[in-house]
Amino acid sequence: MAKPAILRAAKLSDQTNAELEAAFEVHDLPSDATRASAMLDEVGPQLRGIALRKTVVDAALLDRLPGLEIISSYSAGLENVDIDTARSRGIEIANTSHILAEEVANLALGQILGVTRDIHNADRYVRDGKWPDAPYPLQVSLQGMEVGIVGFGQIGQAVARRLEAVGASVSYSGPRRKPVDLPYHATPLELAQACRIVVLTCPLTPETRGIADARFFEAIGPGGWVVNISRGAILDEAALIDVLSRDAIAGAALDVFAEEPEVPEALKRDPRVLLTPHIGSGTTQTRQRMGDAMVDALVARLGTDTPPDR
Amino acid sequence: MAKPAILRAAKLSDQTNAELEAAFEVHDLPSDATRASAMLDEVGPQLRGIALRKTVVDAALLDRLPGLEIISSYSAGLENVDIDTARSRGIEIANTSHILAEEVANLALGQILGVTRDIHNADRYVRDGKWPDAPYPLQVSLQGMEVGIVGFGQIGQAVARRLEAVGASVSYSGPRRKPVDLPYHATPLELAQACRIVVLTCPLTPETRGIADARFFEAIGPGGWVVNISRGAILDEAALIDVLSRDAIAGAALDVFAEEPEVPEALKRDPRVLLTPHIGSGTTQTRQRMGDAMVDALVARLGTDTPPDR
Repeated sequence: MAKPAILRAAKLSDQTNAELEAAFEVHDLPSDATRASAMLDEVGPQLRGIALRKTVVDAALLDRLPGLEIISSYSAGLENVDIDTARSRGIEIANTSHILAEEVANLALGQILGVTRDIHNADRYVRDGKWPDAPYPLQVSLQGMEVGIVGFGQIGQAVARRLEAVGASVSYSGPRRKPVDLPYHATPLELAQACRIVVLTCPLTPETRGIADARFFEAIGPGGWVVNISRGAILDEAALIDVLSRDAIAGAALDVFAEEPEVPEALKRDPRVLLTPHIGSGTTQTRQRMGDAMVDALVARLGTDTPPDR
Repeated sequence: MAKPAILRAAKLSDQTNAELEAAFEVHDLPSDATRASAMLDEVGPQLRGIALRKTVVDAALLDRLPGLEIISSYSAGLENVDIDTARSRGIEIANTSHILAEEVANLALGQILGVTRDIHNADRYVRDGKWPDAPYPLQVSLQGMEVGIVGFGQIGQAVARRLEAVGASVSYSGPRRKPVDLPYHATPLELAQACRIVVLTCPLTPETRGIADARFFEAIGPGGWVVNISRGAILDEAALIDVLSRDAIAGAALDVFAEEPEVPEALKRDPRVLLTPHIGSGTTQTRQRMGDAMVDALVARLGTDTPPDR
C-alpha cells in the first residue's frame, strides 16, 4: 500500500525526521511563498496530515489541503493554528502538552526557587568574591507562601503538585473551575491580588494576550514575582519594565518573550529578573518524547505499514 | 524566683536576643580567652544552659560548667560540640534540624534543578545577547534520573520528597537502613556508583569528613553532579577541582565550603559549578523560627517566669 502523504512544516530532530520518512510520503513546505503555492498546487489534495511546529496554519493554507485529516504539533502551544476552522472541517488536532507538562513544570519550579532564594545573584556574589565582606541577605521562604497559577491545564496542574511539595499554598484561575480541592479565582487579576507569586501557564489566545499587564503586576505587589513559562505575548513586557522601574514588583522569571529570541535590554540589565531562553521543554529526553508523540499521533490517525520501531 | 543563668555563645537576631534576656540571666562568652576564663571563674558554676551557634563547646569548656543542663543550638550541625562528653554528663543537646529541614531541602532542589537545567548559565546567555545566535543547548531531565542522598535524616528525607515530586528515582545511604520504601546503599561510594546526582545531607563527623573524594566523584561520573548543602568539610574541594579539570564529573552545586567564606578560585571561575554562600536555611521566616526553637528548648528545660510571648 502507498504510504500516506503528509506535509512537514517543522524543524525536527534527525531521528524524528527518519521516522516520518519511513512511515510517510513526506512533502516539505517551502519557506518561499511562491514555491510553497506551486507545491500545494501539485500535491495539496493528497496531503492527509501535517507535522507541525511553529509554522502558521491558517484558513488559507487549510483551503489548499482538502484531504487533511490531522494536524500533529510537536509543540504544546497551538497559537499558530486556526483551531476553529480546522475543527469545523473535522480535522483532528494533536499536541504534546501531555508529554512536556512535567518538564516545563520542573523548569517553572527551578525559576520559582531561583527568584525567591535569589540563586543566580547569590552565585554571582560568591564568584565576585563578595562573601568575605558580608553574609548574603536573607531570602524569602516558599513555605506557606500563596502562589497562584493562571491556567490549570496539564502544565498548571504539574506546577501545582511541585509547589505543594515545597510547602506553598496553591490557588488558580482559568476559564472554569476544575475538580480539585484548591482555591479558585475567577480572573487572573483576583488571583494576583491574593498571591505573592503568579505563574502563567495558560495557552496564548486572543483572550489571554497581554493579561499580565500593569494592574496585574501591581496586584502582585512590591514583595512578589511573576513567572512566565507559557508564551511571551501573555505578558506585557513594557508594563513589566515600568513596574520594575518603580519597584512595584520584586522581580520576575521569564522563559518566554514576545519577540524571541530578542529580549528587551531593560530586562537583560535587571538582576531582579531571571531570564532563560525558552528552555521549558528543552531536555534531550523530553524533546525526543515530543517528536515520538508527534509521529505516533500521525501513525494512529493515518496508519502506515512501517510504524516506528523504538 | 531568680532567672536561670545561661551562657550566650552565638550571634543572634535582635528579637531572639531580647527573648533570651527577658527569660534568662544572660552571660555572653567573651571571644578573648583570658576574659572568657575570668568570666567562667566567676559565673561558670551558675550557668545551666548554653545558647549556641558556631562556638566550639569542647570538654575543657564543659569542665568549667558543672551545672550545665542543656546546650541549645541555633544551627542544625553540631560538629562544634563534643557530643560524647556532653551526653556522658547527662547534658541535653537540642538543635534545629527539625525546623530548617524543609527550607534547606528547598534550596537543594533549587540547586539540583539549577545544575541539571543549567539555569544560571542560561540566564547569563540571555543577558549576554547570545540567544539570537543559536538556541540554547538541550539539558538533562530529572524525570526518571537516579538521584542519591547521603544521610537520610530530616533534611535528607525532605530532599527525597521533593525529588519524587519532580520525577526522580531516589535512593540513599547512611549508617543504617531507614523504614522507607527506597533503595538503600551501604556506603556513599556504592550510592555514587548507582546515581547520576548525589546530594550530601549528612552531619559532619570524623566518619563523614572528606567522604566526597576523588573516587566518589569518579563514581558519579562525567554525566553527573554532586550537591552539597551540609558542611563543606564533607567534600574534598581539591579533589573536586581536579576531577572537574579532567571532565570526570559534569559539575556541582555547593552551598557550603571547607573554609567559609573563602571559596577556591578554581571553583569561582568554573561555570559548571553553582555556588551559593551558605544560604540553605537563610530565609527570614526560617531563621526566625530557628531562633524561636533555640529559646523554646532552653525555656522547656530550665523554666522561666517570663516565657516569650509571640
